[in-house]
This record gives sequence, C-alpha cells and structure tokens, in this order.
Amino acid sequence: MNITAPGKASSRTGIPSKADRDRILAAVDAAFDSQVDFLSDLIRCVSLRGHEAGVQELVAAALQERGYTVERQPIDQALIGRHPAFSPATIGYDNSWNVIGLHKPTSAHGRSLILNAHVDIVPTGAQERWQYPPFEPTRRGEWLYGRGSGDMKAGLSAAIFALDAIRAAGLELTAPVQIHSVVEEEITGNGAAMALAGGYVADAVLIPEPTDEKLVRANSGVIKFAIAVHGTPAHPREVSGGVSAVQAAMQLLSHLRRLEDRWNEERTAQPFFDEVENPAALTIGTISGGEWIASVPSCCRFEGRIGFYPGDDPQERVKEFEAFVAKAAAEDPLVQRCPEPIVEWVGVTHAGYILPPGSDAEALLAEAHASANSPDSPPLQAYVMACYLDAAVYSVHAGIPALVYGPVAENIHAINERVSLPSLRRVTKAIALFAAGWCGVRPAIKKPPASRV
Amino acid sequence: MNITAPGKASSRTGIPSKADRDRILAAVDAAFDSQVDFLSDLIRCVSLRGHEAGVQELVAAALQERGYTVERQPIDQALIGRHPAFSPATIGYDNSWNVIGLHKPTSAHGRSLILNAHVDIVPTGAQERWQYPPFEPTRRGEWLYGRGSGDMKAGLSAAIFALDAIRAAGLELTAPVQIHSVVEEEITGNGAAMALAGGYVADAVLIPEPTDEKLVRANSGVIKFAIAVHGTPAHPREVSGGVSAVQAAMQLLSHLRRLEDRWNEERTAQPFFDEVENPAALTIGTISGGEWIASVPSCCRFEGRIGFYPGDDPQERVKEFEAFVAKAAAEDPLVQRCPEPIVEWVGVTHAGYILPPGSDAEALLAEAHASANSPDSPPLQAYVMACYLDAAVYSVHAGIPALVYGPVAENIHAINERVSLPSLRRVTKAIALFAAGWCGVRPAIKKPPASRV
Repeated sequence: MNITAPGKASSRTGIPSKADRDRILAAVDAAFDSQVDFLSDLIRCVSLRGHEAGVQELVAAALQERGYTVERQPIDQALIGRHPAFSPATIGYDNSWNVIGLHKPTSAHGRSLILNAHVDIVPTGAQERWQYPPFEPTRRGEWLYGRGSGDMKAGLSAAIFALDAIRAAGLELTAPVQIHSVVEEEITGNGAAMALAGGYVADAVLIPEPTDEKLVRANSGVIKFAIAVHGTPAHPREVSGGVSAVQAAMQLLSHLRRLEDRWNEERTAQPFFDEVENPAALTIGTISGGEWIASVPSCCRFEGRIGFYPGDDPQERVKEFEAFVAKAAAEDPLVQRCPEPIVEWVGVTHAGYILPPGSDAEALLAEAHASANSPDSPPLQAYVMACYLDAAVYSVHAGIPALVYGPVAENIHAINERVSLPSLRRVTKAIALFAAGWCGVRPAIKKPPASRV
Repeated sequence: MNITAPGKASSRTGIPSKADRDRILAAVDAAFDSQVDFLSDLIRCVSLRGHEAGVQELVAAALQERGYTVERQPIDQALIGRHPAFSPATIGYDNSWNVIGLHKPTSAHGRSLILNAHVDIVPTGAQERWQYPPFEPTRRGEWLYGRGSGDMKAGLSAAIFALDAIRAAGLELTAPVQIHSVVEEEITGNGAAMALAGGYVADAVLIPEPTDEKLVRANSGVIKFAIAVHGTPAHPREVSGGVSAVQAAMQLLSHLRRLEDRWNEERTAQPFFDEVENPAALTIGTISGGEWIASVPSCCRFEGRIGFYPGDDPQERVKEFEAFVAKAAAEDPLVQRCPEPIVEWVGVTHAGYILPPGSDAEALLAEAHASANSPDSPPLQAYVMACYLDAAVYSVHAGIPALVYGPVAENIHAINERVSLPSLRRVTKAIALFAAGWCGVRPAIKKPPASRV
C-alpha cells in the first residue's frame, strides 16, 4: 500500500536553468539561519538508540507543516530473519519508528527520489571531556558543536531545507520525493530496512552522511558481534586454579587481529579498496568483565565490528568469523581451558555496495556540486567509506543508485563532534540543485494548504 | 574506653585435662547440628560489601543470647588516612559495622584472646552456573554449599560454637575473650582496622579463615588498584584517527605482567616465600570500557590487586607500582598517545605478616589440633597464604600473635563454594581446646542470667 513505484527511467532532466538555479541558491541562503535553528533543535533531542521518539515527533511535525504526507512507520519485528535487509535486533522498537514524508506532484514525470537520513546517535562518552555540552548545540565561528551534529542531523536538515528552497524559489518538483527519517542506522540498519520493506523505493536515494562534500564510491559490508568468554573464577591465593575470563578475552582479541589482517589483505583483489588503509577495521567498542576486584573473573564480554567487501555474502563472513573464533579458542593454551566462547550477532549483518562510476545520478550530483561551489573549487571527488551505511540497504536489496554525499564534520562518534556550517550550506544547495535536476521542476501552481495526516 | 588490656604474658596454661577435653569435644558434637543451622542462617544473609547489616544483626543477637557484652561498632571514616591500619575506602559505611562480643571472666588470669571472622562476602558471578542457589545453603553429603560458606561464615560459626562448647562442658574461661565479627575484609580490611583502632587488643588472635586445617605461617602484603585509561574515540571508518582505550588498557595490562614477574622474582630472598608459586599474583578482577559497539572506545578502567612480602612498606610498593605504570605508559607506542593513565587505590593497602615459628600460641594450637583429630592424623602444618588476611592488621599494627587456622573449603570466590562439615567440626573442636588452653578454664560458677547491652 505504501509503494511509490519508481518512475520511468526517463532521459536526464538535467540541472536547472541559471535563473532557477540562482533562485534556489538564494532561497537556501535566505533560510540558512532557520536551518541552523532547526538543526539545533534536532541536536537537543537525545536520540540515543531506543530513544528516537522525541526527535521523530519533531521531524514529523516539521514535515507536516510543509505539506508532506507523513507516515510514522513502526519496525515490523516479524520481518527480522525473514527479509534479507534486516539485521538481528537486541532491543524492542516501541520507541523507535521511522518518519516517512511524501511529496507527490500533481502530475508526475521525471525521476523519483528518496532523501534519507538517520536520527539515531551514538553515546557521547565522558561528557566532561566535551568543550561544550553535547546536547546543547553551540555555534563557534563556522562550526556547530553537538552529538549528532555531523552524524547526521545536519544532513537531515539539508534534505528538508533543500526541498524547501525549491518551493521557496517558486518551483515544484515534477516527480515523487520521499524523505526517510530513519532509526537504527548506528546499530542494525533496521530503520532503512523497514523503509525498504514497506515498499518505499525510488529511482535514486541520496543520503547526506558527513562525507566532507565527497561522494561515496563504495562502502564495506559489516558484521557486529558480541563474544562472551567464561573462565573459572578463583581466589587470588590460588590463581593457577582459575582461568581469568578477562585474560582469555584478551588472548582472543589478540588472535582476532590476525583475522583483521587476513581480511585486510584481500583488499588488493577488490575494486576501489586497494588504497583503503584498513578496510576490515576490527574495532572493539565495549568490554565488560569480572565481578570483584580480588576474584579471578568468571566472565568477560566484548562487542565490536569488522568489515569486508562489496559482493561478499555477510552470512559467509559470519561463518568465517565464527569458525575463526572457535579455532583460535581451541588452539590457545589459556582459552582452550574455557568453555567455547559464545559469539552473538547483535547489530548489522549487511553487505557492502558499490556505486558504479558513470551513472546519470553521479553525473548530475557532480554538476549540482559544482554549481553550489565557487567556480575554482575542485570537482566532486569519490572515495571509499569503510563502514556500514544505510545506502547499502537501498543499493543491495533494491538496486537503487545510492548517493552518499554530505557536509564536512569532525569527531563523529568522538568528543567535540561538530559540523561545518559553510559546508552544510553548500551541501544543502547541491542537494537542492540535484533534486531539482533529478526530479525535474516546473513553476509552482498555487493550491490550497496541504492536507495533514 | 573500649580497651581490653592484654593480660600478663603468663606461663602457658596448656591444653585442658583429658576429662575437660572430652567434655568439650562431646559438647561440640552435641551442638553441631545447631551450628550447621546457624551457619546456614549466616549464608542466607546476602552480606555483599555495603550490605552487611543484616548478617551483623543476626550475629549480634546470637552473641547477646549467649550473654556476651555486645557492641555495634561503626567504622570511623575520619581515621582513614590517619591511622595506619586503614586502607582507602570508596563507599560509605552506613550499613557496614562491626559486632564485638566480649566475655569478661569474674576474675581474670590466663591470656586474653580474640576470635575474629569477617562476614562480608564476594559476588557470586553468574548464579546459573551454581549447582545450588548460592544463598540457599544446601547440604550434600559432607559438604555445605553456599556463597560465604567457606569464606568465612563457617569460621564465624566455629568461633561462636567453640566457646559455647566450653560453657556446655561446665567450664568458664579465666581470661577475657572477644569475638570480632568484622566487615570489609574482602576489600579494605577496614573492619579489622576499626576493631583494632577501637582498642580491642589481646594476647592472641585466632581467625578461622578456610585454610584446610593448616596454620598460616605468613601472608602477602596487598595493594588494590584501579587504572583508568583514556583514549581518543573515533568512528570505525577512521580508526587511525582514534586511540582505543580498550586496546591501550590491554597494552598496559601486558606490561604489568612484567611487574608481576619482577616482584615474583624477589621471593628467593624472602623467608617462607621461596616455594610459593606466584606470591605477587597480579589479578585483574574487573574491566569495563567503551560506550558503543561501533565507536573506538574513549575510556577503559580495570581493577585488580598485586601482592608483595612481609616487611615491605605498602606505601613504597604503591610508589613503585605508580612509577611502573607511568613509565610503561610513556614508553608504549599506543599508550603514550593517551593522557597518563590514572591510578587509584580502591581497596586494601596493607603489609603482610609472619607468624614466627616457635611461639606458645602455635605450640598450643598444634596440641589442640592433634587432640581434635584422630591419633593417626598428621601434625599441624604451616603454609604461606599469598593474599590479604585481617590477621595482618592485628599482627603488623599491634604485634599480636595471629593464628589463621580454619576448615577445608573449596571454590571460595568461585562457583559452587562449599565447606567440609567434618572439617568444620574438627576445627570447632580445635578452637575450643585452644581457647580453653590459652585462656585457662575453671568450673563454671552458677550466676544469674547475663545482662544484655
């Protein structure tokens, strides 16, 4: 029922005329202070995993005000394990739902477009290490500080205000446009998976993740694991009678570096990845073990992620990972004294994607990027991003050309995350020009106020 | 005001007569089922750190019923940092107080005695790994299972029921006896420190820790630390821009093994320790790091303990440890990219002790041990226990001969902790004979019921 069928793959609609372009760019400039205010409101919402409802209410209201048809889309957990776009989940989704905003032109030609952004953020770490409180957005010079400023609430503001600018320029898009404000990108990708499973497809998707105004040529497949090691607790007076689960976990972690090396070595055979420093990027995100300062610890659990290459079946990588852990555990003199480590899959289990060079979408984005920048700026560059991106959901499972392109940001997932406001302004302009060019525009027809859902 | 002055070091009072001995041993046997019931009640009290009030109420009531003068002794936190017996504390002591039971004979000769036991226990670890629920004491054959059964609620029951048996045998001790039911042994030793600082001293102390019916010749000094390592968080797509605090902590831990080796090597110059396998016994009890599965972690903190030798100044060992950590951190290629690790002292910081061979107390305990055992049993053995013991407080700071001698137990600080009931019975007998011999006995004079405090 929610399906917005992809439009016919018509010939390229092309970048708007100079006059239209100028009006659109001026409209972005005119609304930019409002955009920063809106972005600040988004940052104030502490949309950690499982707590996205507040920010989604704000997004839904913003889209309704603008006349979009708005759907609040819950994640249908019955699809997990059945639909290939989903990854395992470890929490309930009662407070985690997507917001989908739909614009349907009065008569459609041109190509349909999804603008996707995720609203979930990662924890701040020690807040006292932040220069400014992470949920009190703070503007200093050209930067706006705050958790989620770069990753990726700036991108969400860019999507919404880019389309605003087209309307403010007196234009109407001539193909369907959807805004997908999704949850769970930082952990499972199940927000984007739900949008896709709900039938929301289009001729292209653009995702303004913080990419330093570059285009993502490919990303890595990613699997997120937790490993629990059980030792044999003991009193320090008889250490040799116990097996420290923390020590065993450390051993296992050191072995896993060999798997990272092995997967990294495969890059030489992979298009686009041969220059990537660390495409596998085994990172351990959390560790927790032991119960008492003076007991040999009985359990240690750590969580992490590891990457691989587009085209690889993530389930095959899961099997390879599990087999490696089992073998390393069996061969290690300490770990072999423990029960076999328990590997759980607690986040994204997803393939990577490639954006093949030469697409219409990329060419148009390159033009839009150039038009949004000063004439002496370098052309749009493409690069590999060795991490999970929701773009993979649209690309891998629906074959939708996926453009990941967004502003300059620093310290994402780190301390003092910040986004460059001049960059955000340029990116908003580029997205507006791209949307206008991809979907096509015509002079807006005055109509009564849009109905709200 | 609370001082019970040590009695004159009179000549050895000696093991009781055969007739008295037989009555005492029979009285232990007669009350043994009650003793196991009492021990079971102690085990049911979940006396984890900071939660000892419940078990102490039970102990206080048991001592009051028996006619002891009972004091509930809070820990005076103002003494911490001023009185050398105390170690740093990291919690408040509102629910953690000692119970002191005093017996003063009508006229005193003989030597005074402290029977000390701690009531605090360590966490259980995963309860589902226990054969029987850890706080539902379960008797199976010769064993009683439960957290704290061996370490050391059995010992506390032995102290109380040993003195009961003397009375039940129609005898009265002729020197002051104190029962110190203390808190905080498992972490700081501040319970025993408070008992000592409160002026409760005597001519000997006996502590029925689980020692397999052997006598502790010496223990190790112990310092308990926490180390916090701060990294530089980052997104997995740019691992090299971050410094994983978990990885840095692992590096630091691997360096600390060198310190353990170095301190272990010193054992060859130490009386009694040259045969101890791992006297330093660096153990990491807990670890916790990171905030998010897919972020390079910003912080990792681990807690542990390390041991050294009697005679060593624990403050010198603290300095050596801190200097080692600082140097290792400065020299490690990864850790040097972090702020200097923060070392905190979060538990016991205490010297070890030696029980010099040849004391009257030891000779008497050997006799008592032999009398409590079958005639063909081997004589009392002595051994080194490379861990903290409250005995060190009495020995180091007051020069009180400290006998640590208690029942066979298994899996202390581990899963399925259990105490041997036949061993507990023998140890109770040996303690009764020792107390009778050390303090002296005379036929009990009938008197009106004891006043209660």
